[in-house]
Amino acid sequence: MKVHNFNAGPSILPNEVLYKASKALIDFEGSGMSILEIGHRTAPFMAVMEEARSLVKELMQLEDDFEVLFLQGGATMQFMQIPMNLLENGETAAYIDTGVWSSKAIKEAKLFGYTDVIASSKESNYNHIPKQFTIPQQASYLHITTNNTIYGTQWQSTPESSIPLVADMSSDILSRSMDFNKYSLIYAGVQKNMGAAGATMVAVRKSMLGKVTRKIPSILDYRNHIENGSMLNTPPVFAVYITMLTLRWLKEQGGIPAIEKINDKKAALLYDEIDHNPLFRGTVVKEDRSKMNACFIMDKPEMEEEFIKFCKKEDIVGIKGHRLSGGFRVSMYNALPYESVEVMVEAMKYFSLKKA
Amino acid sequence: MKVHNFNAGPSILPNEVLYKASKALIDFEGSGMSILEIGHRTAPFMAVMEEARSLVKELMQLEDDFEVLFLQGGATMQFMQIPMNLLENGETAAYIDTGVWSSKAIKEAKLFGYTDVIASSKESNYNHIPKQFTIPQQASYLHITTNNTIYGTQWQSTPESSIPLVADMSSDILSRSMDFNKYSLIYAGVQKNMGAAGATMVAVRKSMLGKVTRKIPSILDYRNHIENGSMLNTPPVFAVYITMLTLRWLKEQGGIPAIEKINDKKAALLYDEIDHNPLFRGTVVKEDRSKMNACFIMDKPEMEEEFIKFCKKEDIVGIKGHRLSGGFRVSMYNALPYESVEVMVEAMKYFSLKKA
Ligand SMILES: Cc1ncc(COP(=O)(O)O)c(C=O)c1O
Ligand SMILES: Cc1ncc(COP(=O)(O)O)c(C=O)c1O
Ligand SMILES: [Mg+2]
Ligand SMILES: [Mg+2]
Ligand SMILES: [Mg+2]
Ligand SMILES: [Mg+2]
Repeated sequence: MKVHNFNAGPSILPNEVLYKASKALIDFEGSGMSILEIGHRTAPFMAVMEEARSLVKELMQLEDDFEVLFLQGGATMQFMQIPMNLLENGETAAYIDTGVWSSKAIKEAKLFGYTDVIASSKESNYNHIPKQFTIPQQASYLHITTNNTIYGTQWQSTPESSIPLVADMSSDILSRSMDFNKYSLIYAGVQKNMGAAGATMVAVRKSMLGKVTRKIPSILDYRNHIENGSMLNTPPVFAVYITMLTLRWLKEQGGIPAIEKINDKKAALLYDEIDHNPLFRGTVVKEDRSKMNACFIMDKPEMEEEFIKFCKKEDIVGIKGHRLSGGFRVSMYNALPYESVEVMVEAMKYFSLKKA
Repeated sequence: MKVHNFNAGPSILPNEVLYKASKALIDFEGSGMSILEIGHRTAPFMAVMEEARSLVKELMQLEDDFEVLFLQGGATMQFMQIPMNLLENGETAAYIDTGVWSSKAIKEAKLFGYTDVIASSKESNYNHIPKQFTIPQQASYLHITTNNTIYGTQWQSTPESSIPLVADMSSDILSRSMDFNKYSLIYAGVQKNMGAAGATMVAVRKSMLGKVTRKIPSILDYRNHIENGSMLNTPPVFAVYITMLTLRWLKEQGGIPAIEKINDKKAALLYDEIDHNPLFRGTVVKEDRSKMNACFIMDKPEMEEEFIKFCKKEDIVGIKGHRLSGGFRVSMYNALPYESVEVMVEAMKYFSLKKA
């Protein structure tokens, strides 16, 4: 029996993907071997890797200059790998701080050059996306986090920028239409909307690379991964396989425009309940609310534990807020069915009536 | 139907591990969620991580000073991460070059300090392990590759060293008894003897750390991973899970001493056939032969393709040699049953009779 899985990441995956992977774990495409037992340089796995890379380009409609890589180390590795590859010693990179993840990215960039934090919503506990900022024209790039997973904020549109845009899209990648070609580098740990923990997607414009003078260790130089078709060394085979299956699934759903419609409906249903239900209150300014991670609290915090227990009986899991923001966080990634949000909303309604 | 899987890595895994993982992919311990869908900071996954870490310590009988980590990036990431953490600017690290993997490790170390390659078997196409070398007493560490996966050589004993020993054990980890406590840092991509591609095991003595002055990016600093129980960021959940299951399996077999006996028998059977069969010839000096990867050639190279085709009909896969060494490479990792080597030897005998 499946639960209603609102985990923030690693998080729910499509059932079809899990069933297919479960079979491949015993016998991959009739090879007499598990997907875990085949060489990564064999034709069957190379095909998996190539399909995953090209599905990303297709679904996001990326221009030819982009190369798609599946690396290791999580989005956290990118916090340092990006400035190492793009930020020259003594030069400046601009960052907008919308929470823990951007802050961590800023911290790592300081090891390679100067950082200019041109806006931050820290003062108001990251409850909104900054609107006022001036992009320094001489900066090497501007880094944003399109969706803040912890505080539940989301950029509603891509900032206009004449300098290269770099984005951490870990928690809203492939969930909504965007002009991805406005970016120069997009990265995401795949464990939320794209696949299973263990692979990091990096889509980078080739024209951005090779401009810094520092010596970059082989494994951290994007150019080496590009040259080797994302197979510089043993890739995280299974995580890439799950990603490929999840991308196939998304394409079958109708791609990003189709999933976006469902994501809009799910978010509307939940936020509507948050707003109308007297027990609950959203923590983020309305116009910046994330459609992936809805954060809310109770006016009576002492009831929160009770509500979580109540939900557990309804097979609702993963709704406890991050320790930094408290309350609740309900994550509604691509694979979460609309029905799970209905069940969640029913639970909120019922609990509220019981308490009235 | 299972084939006889002699792949060099990723490679064969125990059937029990695959069956268990296949179930956990649909429902992990009755949670109503896949192992891929649970948060990594939940109690059930933390237990997996802790069990994997402590099984390594137990099976290798590591002293308390050792910390066991499961990182990302493969053994290749360690080529740079080790000197970054252990080699001070301007200081020297000693390396012994036994093939491609040591050479790559040496190349990355040069980015952080000086390297002193105190011995190399390159001149003889890496067909042996160097015996004559002097360890420079002022070097920060001595790095060896205990088993060369490509050329099929293996250190038969640990060199006596008064400076810290660092070893890449990617292709013979957990396959034989060694005094692991003679080492200060041991690392291995887990995709051969320990698990599935996507995790790298690092066992490091805490006393080795914190001695270099350079600023280390957070994700590359071993101390941060230690402090966070190998969960600094989202770990490669599934690869760690497979590793934990494989370690449990090894313990059930009787641990390293028990598997070593079987590995010895497998290697003896195969090398005996190589030596006695007139068609085949080993490429490595006898005393340095690897029990994990047996490399051999045919006196009539034009027959090699034919033999590989013949083997394929017998459901024998993965025996083609690495492009750098040619001929055949038969990998006999822990999970490979003795019966598979018997089938291999039968094929060699039969082919030889047919050609006589
Ligand atoms: C927006 C964002 N960036 C970065 C990370 C860190 O990702 P990883 O754990 O893959 O390093 C997360 C993790 O949840 C995230 O939500
Ligand atoms: C001895 C040895 N070291 C390092 C590596 C590289 O490992 P990875 O692909 O995990 O980076 C290999 C890969 O086969 C190996 O056999
Ligand atoms: Mg952020
Ligand atoms: Mg309300
Ligand atoms: Mg080597
Ligand atoms: Mg012979």
